[in-house]
Amino acid sequence: MTASVLVVGSVAFDSVKTPFGEANEILGGSATHFSVAASYFAPVRLVGVVGTDFSDAHLQTFHKHKIDLDGLTFANGRTFRWAGEYSFDLNDRRTLDTQLNVFQNFIPVIPDSYRSSEYVFLGNIDPDLQLNVLQQIKRPRLVACDTMNFWIEGKVDSLKRTLAHVDILIINDSETRELAGVPNLVKAANKIMGMGPKTLIVKRGEYGVLMFHGSSIFAAPAFPLEDVYDPTGAGDTFAGGFIGALAHADEINERTFRRGIIFGSVMASFNVERFGVERVSDLKRNEIDARFRQFKALTHFEEL
Amino acid sequence: MTASVLVVGSVAFDSVKTPFGEANEILGGSATHFSVAASYFAPVRLVGVVGTDFSDAHLQTFHKHKIDLDGLTFANGRTFRWAGEYSFDLNDRRTLDTQLNVFQNFIPVIPDSYRSSEYVFLGNIDPDLQLNVLQQIKRPRLVACDTMNFWIEGKVDSLKRTLAHVDILIINDSETRELAGVPNLVKAANKIMGMGPKTLIVKRGEYGVLMFHGSSIFAAPAFPLEDVYDPTGAGDTFAGGFIGALAHADEINERTFRRGIIFGSVMASFNVERFGVERVSDLKRNEIDARFRQFKALTHFEEL
Repeated sequence: MTASVLVVGSVAFDSVKTPFGEANEILGGSATHFSVAASYFAPVRLVGVVGTDFSDAHLQTFHKHKIDLDGLTFANGRTFRWAGEYSFDLNDRRTLDTQLNVFQNFIPVIPDSYRSSEYVFLGNIDPDLQLNVLQQIKRPRLVACDTMNFWIEGKVDSLKRTLAHVDILIINDSETRELAGVPNLVKAANKIMGMGPKTLIVKRGEYGVLMFHGSSIFAAPAFPLEDVYDPTGAGDTFAGGFIGALAHADEINERTFRRGIIFGSVMASFNVERFGVERVSDLKRNEIDARFRQFKALTHFEEL
Repeated sequence: MTASVLVVGSVAFDSVKTPFGEANEILGGSATHFSVAASYFAPVRLVGVVGTDFSDAHLQTFHKHKIDLDGLTFANGRTFRWAGEYSFDLNDRRTLDTQLNVFQNFIPVIPDSYRSSEYVFLGNIDPDLQLNVLQQIKRPRLVACDTMNFWIEGKVDSLKRTLAHVDILIINDSETRELAGVPNLVKAANKIMGMGPKTLIVKRGEYGVLMFHGSSIFAAPAFPLEDVYDPTGAGDTFAGGFIGALAHADEINERTFRRGIIFGSVMASFNVERFGVERVSDLKRNEIDARFRQFKALTHFEEL
């Protein structure tokens, strides 16, 4: 019953400094984090672009997880690079360097073999390109989408055109307030659900996520960890676990959404334990299930 | 089976400005917010001080909730006054004015009729006074305590002496990090549980609370509200609901702690809907229970 997942986004080399160490030019990017996490639940098809400096060793990570790379373009030039540094409590991040390289002129082309994909995740790219991707796909069962303040501030009309075709928007709390122009999160969510997405998932970092879906709200905490090494990619890893679990169930309702959110939170909790995709690319299924049960223990209280 | 609750803390006149309006010299203070919330669950005894400007109308609020005022001293002078202003998203608060007045020389005296109180909450006062209060009480079943950065920075040795006699410490996340001197919240909690309290409850404002208790962690969200008018006193209202519910059950275990935390969160969610104690002093029991059930709906997901 498992359906297929398609992701469009960045594949990058990240250089990250945290109070606990640093990593240099490791495999990262939204499509990478998403696809590795989703691969534990459903077959994943990736659309992205890399440069001639992208090696077989890097490809191995994708092969290991049987991620379909028919949609990965090798362009002339260098792969997208990003460098950033985190504050002592990991709550603030400073971008040190961004080199878009081949990602600058990325125009996603969906291979024929991908056109009937059922679950689609549009990573954080230009909203015009996100819409263009949707027009190349036949009839997805579910479309989820990420964006960022850069597009909310610079291309809000394009973003709104795209959102009209999106089922689930997955953004953080400041983006929610900015997109709606309303400080109260509940009011902001209701306004955004009027723009197209029937469901809004608000990521709140170490505080977890809130899902708004009609008049229903679901709150999930982040998993409290003693050792958080690198938060980079946690949001895309969350989305990968969430959409992957939904595609696995291939059933769209409040029950599968809530379970998906917990699976997403589980994958995000593993992601931050090491740099890049190091931890998430090396998981066993029983580790995922054990942490799911720990989330249940973390949140359980008896009914009245 | 319901046991009695004793609270020591401030009774004040608060002047509050929020983006939604302002209130002038309304009844507030930690002991006020705590006792009104706790009164829905258990009989409450208050220890505090007010000035000659404290009127019968103010006393009415306490009488309405059958709060025992044998421990409320009327001193010569003016009642404690505090004034503050909140930012547009209510997440930042600026103190505009503090006049300690009669609270400056407050030395809590526990009346004989209070000495066998079973559940004790030490509101945020000088830790030497908190310890002095404990020495006046016979054999409490449970002692909970609040504090703030002012005491962590200025009287940490006194605070640690007090903490050695405390079962539950209830503070916010920045206080947790500061008291432990550790940025990671889980590590900080473990360090604080080594100072005396077997249980630490970390208040995170709009993100809810985390309870650490041995190796168990419980996460409860705050209730997402469309209209938040005034967060003043939410933390003490939470503590009142929590300790009140524990005293009502008069059973100290993981199950009653978790239920207590939800009742505390329910009371705090009502507190912020209006200024001061306006909303919490006017609740019906079925409203409390209905919101408890809404918390269950907010956090529920199926087991694996």
